[in-house]
Amino acid sequence: MSGGIVEVKEHKDGEENMAAWLVGIKTLKIEPYHLPPLGPHDVKVQIKALGICGSDVHHFKNMRCANFIVKKPMVIGHECAGIIEEVGSEVKTLAVGDRVALEPGISCRRCNLCKDGRYNLCPEMKFFGSPPTNGSLANKVVHPEYLCFKLPDNVSLEEGAMCEPLSVGVHACRRANISPETNVLIVGAGPIGLIVLLAARAFGAPRIVIVDVDDCRLSIAKNLGADETIQVSTNIQDVGEEVVILQSAMGSGIDVSFDCVGLNKTMSTALNATRSGGKVCLIGLAQSETTVPLTPAAVREVDVIGIFRYRNTWPLCIELLKTGKIDVKPLITHRFGFSQKGVEDAFETSASGRSAIKVMFNL
Amino acid sequence: MSGGIVEVKEHKDGEENMAAWLVGIKTLKIEPYHLPPLGPHDVKVQIKALGICGSDVHHFKNMRCANFIVKKPMVIGHECAGIIEEVGSEVKTLAVGDRVALEPGISCRRCNLCKDGRYNLCPEMKFFGSPPTNGSLANKVVHPEYLCFKLPDNVSLEEGAMCEPLSVGVHACRRANISPETNVLIVGAGPIGLIVLLAARAFGAPRIVIVDVDDCRLSIAKNLGADETIQVSTNIQDVGEEVVILQSAMGSGIDVSFDCVGLNKTMSTALNATRSGGKVCLIGLAQSETTVPLTPAAVREVDVIGIFRYRNTWPLCIELLKTGKIDVKPLITHRFGFSQKGVEDAFETSASGRSAIKVMFNL
Amino acid sequence: MSGGIVEVKEHKDGEENMAAWLVGIKTLKIEPYHLPPLGPHDVKVQIKALGICGSDVHHFKNMRCANFIVKKPMVIGHECAGIIEEVGSEVKTLAVGDRVALEPGISCRRCNLCKDGRYNLCPEMKFFGSPPTNGSLANKVVHPEYLCFKLPDNVSLEEGAMCEPLSVGVHACRRANISPETNVLIVGAGPIGLIVLLAARAFGAPRIVIVDVDDCRLSIAKNLGADETIQVSTNIQDVGEEVVILQSAMGSGIDVSFDCVGLNKTMSTALNATRSGGKVCLIGLAQSETTVPLTPAAVREVDVIGIFRYRNTWPLCIELLKTGKIDVKPLITHRFGFSQKGVEDAFETSASGRSAIKVMFNL
Amino acid sequence: MSGGIVEVKEHKDGEENMAAWLVGIKTLKIEPYHLPPLGPHDVKVQIKALGICGSDVHHFKNMRCANFIVKKPMVIGHECAGIIEEVGSEVKTLAVGDRVALEPGISCRRCNLCKDGRYNLCPEMKFFGSPPTNGSLANKVVHPEYLCFKLPDNVSLEEGAMCEPLSVGVHACRRANISPETNVLIVGAGPIGLIVLLAARAFGAPRIVIVDVDDCRLSIAKNLGADETIQVSTNIQDVGEEVVILQSAMGSGIDVSFDCVGLNKTMSTALNATRSGGKVCLIGLAQSETTVPLTPAAVREVDVIGIFRYRNTWPLCIELLKTGKIDVKPLITHRFGFSQKGVEDAFETSASGRSAIKVMFNL
Repeated sequence: MSGGIVEVKEHKDGEENMAAWLVGIKTLKIEPYHLPPLGPHDVKVQIKALGICGSDVHHFKNMRCANFIVKKPMVIGHECAGIIEEVGSEVKTLAVGDRVALEPGISCRRCNLCKDGRYNLCPEMKFFGSPPTNGSLANKVVHPEYLCFKLPDNVSLEEGAMCEPLSVGVHACRRANISPETNVLIVGAGPIGLIVLLAARAFGAPRIVIVDVDDCRLSIAKNLGADETIQVSTNIQDVGEEVVILQSAMGSGIDVSFDCVGLNKTMSTALNATRSGGKVCLIGLAQSETTVPLTPAAVREVDVIGIFRYRNTWPLCIELLKTGKIDVKPLITHRFGFSQKGVEDAFETSASGRSAIKVMFNL
Repeated sequence: MSGGIVEVKEHKDGEENMAAWLVGIKTLKIEPYHLPPLGPHDVKVQIKALGICGSDVHHFKNMRCANFIVKKPMVIGHECAGIIEEVGSEVKTLAVGDRVALEPGISCRRCNLCKDGRYNLCPEMKFFGSPPTNGSLANKVVHPEYLCFKLPDNVSLEEGAMCEPLSVGVHACRRANISPETNVLIVGAGPIGLIVLLAARAFGAPRIVIVDVDDCRLSIAKNLGADETIQVSTNIQDVGEEVVILQSAMGSGIDVSFDCVGLNKTMSTALNATRSGGKVCLIGLAQSETTVPLTPAAVREVDVIGIFRYRNTWPLCIELLKTGKIDVKPLITHRFGFSQKGVEDAFETSASGRSAIKVMFNL
Repeated sequence: MSGGIVEVKEHKDGEENMAAWLVGIKTLKIEPYHLPPLGPHDVKVQIKALGICGSDVHHFKNMRCANFIVKKPMVIGHECAGIIEEVGSEVKTLAVGDRVALEPGISCRRCNLCKDGRYNLCPEMKFFGSPPTNGSLANKVVHPEYLCFKLPDNVSLEEGAMCEPLSVGVHACRRANISPETNVLIVGAGPIGLIVLLAARAFGAPRIVIVDVDDCRLSIAKNLGADETIQVSTNIQDVGEEVVILQSAMGSGIDVSFDCVGLNKTMSTALNATRSGGKVCLIGLAQSETTVPLTPAAVREVDVIGIFRYRNTWPLCIELLKTGKIDVKPLITHRFGFSQKGVEDAFETSASGRSAIKVMFNL
Repeated sequence: MSGGIVEVKEHKDGEENMAAWLVGIKTLKIEPYHLPPLGPHDVKVQIKALGICGSDVHHFKNMRCANFIVKKPMVIGHECAGIIEEVGSEVKTLAVGDRVALEPGISCRRCNLCKDGRYNLCPEMKFFGSPPTNGSLANKVVHPEYLCFKLPDNVSLEEGAMCEPLSVGVHACRRANISPETNVLIVGAGPIGLIVLLAARAFGAPRIVIVDVDDCRLSIAKNLGADETIQVSTNIQDVGEEVVILQSAMGSGIDVSFDCVGLNKTMSTALNATRSGGKVCLIGLAQSETTVPLTPAAVREVDVIGIFRYRNTWPLCIELLKTGKIDVKPLITHRFGFSQKGVEDAFETSASGRSAIKVMFNL
């Protein structure tokens, strides 16, 4: 199989370039990274733009994210785009100089889930920057042709890198069947909530209400096109009252709620607010065990839909960017260069909280 | 609209017959019940068989079930079949003397949910024995023609009454897309768990594992065709260990889990045991607020499907009974007559616990 | 059931108003029409706007449309909106003076198709102006509350009447799952083709190519937002060549093709042009028996989806009009008053061909 | 990617074994075949059982089947099972000596259709015995591990080979959503019609009516469990009358019709017989251009579903065989050895017509 993502140990004789290695809690070092050999179906890409994701920050701060644990130094990062420097012998659709966005996960393509088109659930997935697989905050990476997507002239490399977070929103909207007849509630106006807002609008959602505890985030949401923004508390006792307020703000039934946070309170809000026969889509993962009113939702046949990354979303994301149906540029709030200091500052900025939405590297 | 189910006050001049009124906690009285007038699309049915449902027992013991509260005397019961005594002027498909099973809920047929075919979620549903609507443990009831289904010669009136609980299993299997490629876990071997077992088998499930705390129930499940039965504890600490055991008993991935109980432990078992991309179907409602590992299931895209009653299931249930694909007779463990003592004994038996599966009245 | 639509004979004692009766081929007469009694769930509506549909023209010219044959005088028309003059005793959501759009078909709400939410296929449907049911080109009609939809202030009565043809487009887009990832080909730029164009755009179709033999219609399509318009011939020999041209105009795979004509050539074009795994949606019905390359499409798993009218589309249509996502006003090309001469002129205009898109009555 | 199926020219230095080469119309020769090299994810399989398919017969008689044209000598055959002789270095789930059934098509696993799980529609599919790809009527073949499925002890190698035709039935039943509430009509009782009969039964179809012109085939269908068998004519004038007869034999609505022939008459029968809102599934491909009543079916929303081979069906087929839910052994009517004479006789038998259902080689 194509050997795009492997550990540095195995490729000591490969071409050397530099990468940002996570070597300990809050400790990143730019050090040499040896590329794996270029297989016949692979391309070598000079990374030019890379965004920091919440999961990168988790790794940075805790050396883990959910069940993924960083046990030895690992190159970090996975939201990226770049320029093709070399192509393998069998590559037909891409050429040197092409600007491409990279889908970061290589699935086995042999298991039942892969065969059924749900390859995001493949148990053997190798995913940039998800331990033990090295990431892509590096000058160059080797990646399979079929996971590199050519960018049109009017889509920048930064926008190309944004295809990764946008893919989460697109996958969620697909799974929840968002259409011109779906009124949408979004709980949480952080980076993912804002992305879901943009995606749901592109899928035709006629009315979108978004809630958060932070009015600064809500004003960004308003600027991005939310129909109503509602500030809520962190107190779970307020769920009942707040649900009444946000249902009233919607004006008609809430067909789909996206929980982009994952706390008891946010899930309870989503479960209680959604109309009978609607859907709650869980994207945020703040808590592992949650205490929520699940049966009252179940007897109203409110289904709970889980989301894990995305599958086959890049072509659609690029189309949405190309045609201007989605503009991700306002989400990019900070930019850094690819230097030891740049990397340190960028991760500190991203980890420090709410003022940053998307922190981007320009390499 | 057709006036099948209304309160006795409004029909003091209607034909008088006897019904079992719930007048207080654990207090049932057989007293006169006045039938509403027979509309042009209605039929009058002599009730001949009626089974006691868990929700009836909840009303009997607590004067409430979930959000439904009994505020004044109400005729109890809703799982029933009988013989047609009279038909309205516009009735075309049924005749006097026909043996019929009754679907107990009358939806508004005007709201969006009704128009979309999800009439079980209709907010104006009038449902036999669900307060404030009178039930059908009575000598006679008036009901719309389109909710009465003719029984074939080889399906008894008792089996006709069993179409109601069977409908819950059928609706759950439809919603969960059970097919010959769905390996099924059932958590809970009470009446609903056993019904789901029969329904899942009829929908082609190749392998069904069922778990319960009670080995007596499990042996019934075994006799009804479960491939594996596994006794579990009531201790939530055991979930991890038990999941390993029951996954191993399945032998391959668990595609769909039905939680027929609704406790923290049973839901946790279902959520953790189901394979990535599978479904958990919530039927049992023991707890309103539950503490469960929802996000670990969500990131594996295990969807949680809620179930409320059923919709348009009687024709299929009757077909399954007629062709022998499902045999519900072994579930009927107790029978009583329609007398003051019979009613009291029947409800006591049903409320007392595990030895009874289905308690049936013969009227 | 509610008696909205019945024949005049039965209501000689009802309130008299005037209606346009189709009494013979190309012969319409404005004569008295007696309203049926107002049932408790009915409303009486003063019709204010009514559009002429292709099926009305078929009835007008041939006293038949498909299998529907006009055997005795019948009030014509069904695309309508008006103002409520009176409400039945049980009507709760509408009041005198409300401006409403009328969904023209009353289904039985008792059969399996109705219960399953596919009421447009109900075999007992009573539909305005579809023989033997009288239509709505009349000063007033009586209609069930649940089929009358209140118009927002910014949606005119003419636009309300346009909800009917728009519903065909909306139903087709729903059945074909049009979304931001569906490239659409529309074959035929007549009134239905243009409506499908507007609906597909509202459902997010990123790229829409439309073909017709008439360049005048194509220029209207261009103005309404088609990405590419392509003039084709009437010669079936040209299908192969034209398919290459229009695939190239699309630039990527054609996911869904709508045949809004229904001739051998148009169906062949749709079947051959659609990508493997895509869908062809048949809306036009010009020919009953068709000679088409069905198996070559079937082996590419191109599914053929049939469309009959619509179901539960009015709320969405009104939303799309209210928010400006769809503008139907450019489709209204001619207007006439409700007089003997107005009716004759309007139907002649509509029947004469291509210059008219939508002919509207103002009553 | 894994090089299981390639042309002999490229592997002159590969291990030599014998294969049945189609070298001209009705001309097969057993001649040397050089195996491609064993890739790390490949296995080498000794073929032990191979069935002749209708498409093989088409190639044999006409050097073509549909659009596939045999332009130079090609090894024939694709329905096969065998014993593993050698495994590649990365093979983990299979071992030497394992008995396996082979899924014959290798898709690219890079295109959109592959990513979406519809790999049977992959435009770069390399499929045993479909020109220009060599088939598997050979002593040995090299094939990817992920397309070889281990057989349980109670499933014979002949049954393993039957997984291929059974897969067509399984894929058709999946696409048509066959369940315990689907009444099924099968048009054509040839090998595919009989396989669909077995599959539809396994998917729970409560009532199956099958029609054919040949009463011998119908009696086989009866023995295999058809509820009703009806002999029809070859005269298209009889469609109307026959549809009445077979609808009456069904007793209730025909939910899904499978056309396993593909002639004007069989498609017309399927289209006219199916209930409103049902489905017609096209499997037979006798005619390329067909003259059929498509619009009358479309206005009843009878959808037409195309079928091309299958995707990810082997695990289910093996499960159905293992548990005895399907018994394919009665379909094997003739057996031949792998010799020049055996091959000639087998293909002559298969090509000669109706007495043979499945002709099997034992190698």
